[in-house]
Amino acid sequence: MSAIQQNLKERNAKYASSFTQGDLALPPAKKYVVVTCMDARIDPAAAYGIDLGDAHVIRNAGGNAKDALRSIIISNQLLGTTEIILVKHTDCGMLTFQNADARGVVEKNLGSEAGQAVSNLDFQPFPDLEQAVKDDLEFLKANPAVSKQATVSGWVYEVETGKTRQVA
Amino acid sequence: MSAIQQNLKERNAKYASSFTQGDLALPPAKKYVVVTCMDARIDPAAAYGIDLGDAHVIRNAGGNAKDALRSIIISNQLLGTTEIILVKHTDCGMLTFQNADARGVVEKNLGSEAGQAVSNLDFQPFPDLEQAVKDDLEFLKANPAVSKQATVSGWVYEVETGKTRQVA
Repeated sequence: MSAIQQNLKERNAKYASSFTQGDLALPPAKKYVVVTCMDARIDPAAAYGIDLGDAHVIRNAGGNAKDALRSIIISNQLLGTTEIILVKHTDCGMLTFQNADARGVVEKNLGSEAGQAVSNLDFQPFPDLEQAVKDDLEFLKANPAVSKQATVSGWVYEVETGKTRQVA
Repeated sequence: MSAIQQNLKERNAKYASSFTQGDLALPPAKKYVVVTCMDARIDPAAAYGIDLGDAHVIRNAGGNAKDALRSIIISNQLLGTTEIILVKHTDCGMLTFQNADARGVVEKNLGSEAGQAVSNLDFQPFPDLEQAVKDDLEFLKANPAVSKQATVSGWVYEVETGKTRQVA
């Protein structure tokens, strides 16, 4: 067992030993879904004030709405959420490269078969943070599988300060 | 501003007021990435023992590895993570429907254009929890864009008890 697996096992045993919320319902109690980045410096529950059982939390590289679409549709249509909160963040890795760079790194690290496998993959980098939030909101609002009744807002989290501000 | 947005704003202000970790590096300090479900009953940082700055956390409906692939490649190849922890969970919504059900609900709720938009979408439901963990691990191990050197393990989190157990 790796040190990381050992850490998960030990820390989880401690968490479970005082766990008292085993009767929460499957659908989010506050009927919302948060889409944010996988970045290691973000703890959505703490930073965005999400209590256990209240909201779905979708995370991926960049807090990308296209990547999150399957999950958002399931959240909204099958599990009853009606509000979408999209949060990207300062100093995001997605601001630092372009598709050609990423494909080059994969091929250099893993060889030509890997390079071939990602030759058509859009890694979804973006050059402008606030514009990327706005673009993702427009993408969701324009998608026929997202309800026109859904409340959608866009935010930026600052990894330097812990502060979140609304931008769309 | 909606009640949910107001909650985010107020809770975040409180979080930021005592925030002291603004100097963490972008790449995860412990070089691992966790893939888990968007389920509202999971707090990965607390339940899996992830300290701020230590790991990428990818979340989607079902903790699906295919959906997470773009993010995993970015995490591994561009941001230096070398270990993947995949955690699915008991009572997952993905155990409760099939693609035809989901497509039918979308069409019923949002109309024929929406139904058409998801007619080819694989919602990635699964009928067997532990098998789904194993299948996703095999998917990652077989993918040319995932390093053969990466350490990959599979786990089940029990929403009823807060306990996590390794299954692959």
